[in-house]
Amino acid sequence: MKMIKTIPEIQAEIRKQREQGQARTIGFVPTMGALHQGHLSLVQACREENDVTVVSIFVNPAQFGPNEDFEKYPRDFQTDESMLKELGVDLIFYPAKDEIYPPGYSTYVEVEKLGQVLCGKSRPTHFKGVATVVLKLFNIIKPDRAYFGRKDAQQAVIIKRMAAELNLDVTIKALPIVRDPDGLALSSRNVYLSPAERGAALHLPRALMRAQERIQAGLKDAAEIKAGIETELRKSPLLTVDYVEVATLDGLEPFPGSPGGQLIASNNTLVAAAVKVGKTRLIDNFILGEI
Amino acid sequence: MKMIKTIPEIQAEIRKQREQGQARTIGFVPTMGALHQGHLSLVQACREENDVTVVSIFVNPAQFGPNEDFEKYPRDFQTDESMLKELGVDLIFYPAKDEIYPPGYSTYVEVEKLGQVLCGKSRPTHFKGVATVVLKLFNIIKPDRAYFGRKDAQQAVIIKRMAAELNLDVTIKALPIVRDPDGLALSSRNVYLSPAERGAALHLPRALMRAQERIQAGLKDAAEIKAGIETELRKSPLLTVDYVEVATLDGLEPFPGSPGGQLIASNNTLVAAAVKVGKTRLIDNFILGEI
Repeated sequence: MKMIKTIPEIQAEIRKQREQGQARTIGFVPTMGALHQGHLSLVQACREENDVTVVSIFVNPAQFGPNEDFEKYPRDFQTDESMLKELGVDLIFYPAKDEIYPPGYSTYVEVEKLGQVLCGKSRPTHFKGVATVVLKLFNIIKPDRAYFGRKDAQQAVIIKRMAAELNLDVTIKALPIVRDPDGLALSSRNVYLSPAERGAALHLPRALMRAQERIQAGLKDAAEIKAGIETELRKSPLLTVDYVEVATLDGLEPFPGSPGGQLIASNNTLVAAAVKVGKTRLIDNFILGEI
Repeated sequence: MKMIKTIPEIQAEIRKQREQGQARTIGFVPTMGALHQGHLSLVQACREENDVTVVSIFVNPAQFGPNEDFEKYPRDFQTDESMLKELGVDLIFYPAKDEIYPPGYSTYVEVEKLGQVLCGKSRPTHFKGVATVVLKLFNIIKPDRAYFGRKDAQQAVIIKRMAAELNLDVTIKALPIVRDPDGLALSSRNVYLSPAERGAALHLPRALMRAQERIQAGLKDAAEIKAGIETELRKSPLLTVDYVEVATLDGLEPFPGSPGGQLIASNNTLVAAAVKVGKTRLIDNFILGEI
């Protein structure tokens, strides 16, 4: 496994890998480090489906808002590196901030509308930062396939739309959420939670699981699905609801909660929620259909 | 010469060209058609420097403002096609609007700051539209070199910055302005001018040429350069000034007109002006240095 910090070096290495065989495919897993089993499931899938696996570790300042946790976001390169080595990753790309955003940097890409709903409402510049860094990384690495987690369903939908609309030659894969045994979706931010907060946080997967069961039992009314989730989330005083939304999966358009509700689509629906537990923002979701 | 209208077909053709030889280089000239000698000078340079020359013809709706001339912008594909054939162009890419912007299209790239000054002040979404279509075309064609005219100096600066900041593998070439014998810079929009308007329009190149002479004679004061150009432009009642600016070439930052002015840089200065003659907007410039 090679660890590379600069763009010219990773580009040279990728070129070399490409030239070593006509049919070689390159798979790419972009991360912000602080790796957990969710990331590792992406790396494993990437290894299985591609000849060369590249993982980037870059805490992307452009996707954090001014009052968010960029500074305290967990960083542990040594541990990440040894986990990736264990999994047989070929290349780690670990650039410094100025390597990605040199002084005076000013080019940004935005998937309009999709980036302004759901998480985009409380994080208005987040997806612009995500799309920009992912586009740059795609241009540097030129992967055949790139892997994202469905916990960040909105992110996966946006990246997939960006790749299609900007005519990129990359297949976007969105893989299932990995959960702790208690149900909480894995997130690098879970380390922020105190034991009491973690207990409260469990209302989030529980509320979504209950909604999923009700849909399986025949519930199709978007307003009722939302109301059920909100009721569950309000059970804990430690937890505040950022949003609960039932939206189309491809266009992220909310099913409006008209009187009597609106019926969800059985193969194109995202049910997503975001909460704050103390200072920690957590998201979770389930989808009907495929990203 | 092949004429291709769809993205999958041009991609297949480009792949085929690439596979025909290890060292083959692809040159690309993006245009909106209504070709004149300015465009053709780009095509000629492209032919000389590359094995394969691709020209796109696409009147890009995204770079026109709501009250601009998208509908009446001159279109004459047959004439364009025969000129390009004459010059030995290999591929024309001539997509329909929906091929580039399918319904619901929403991904845009912006070079912030650079796109908001000079022409960006009166055309606030123009360079976002330009950057987006050029990025898409670059992703589709994957050229080694792309050719732009210096008449649109701001555009060339923005595209060059975008290519660098998004880590694209393309060299941006900005070639000299081509002028009619009377001095007017060639533009597809010159056909809009009545004879009287054309006479008035000549104040624009005349004012810039006079400024260039004064700089050659030693004038370095940005405020005085601007004032001289404005005085010349105000001589015609048919002509209204949109802007006259003296700015750094790389960052498009105006040299402020403080009392006594500010001294221009001898190798990093853009002197640019935009005027309206009747309903027609015309731009012209000269540069000290290289884009």
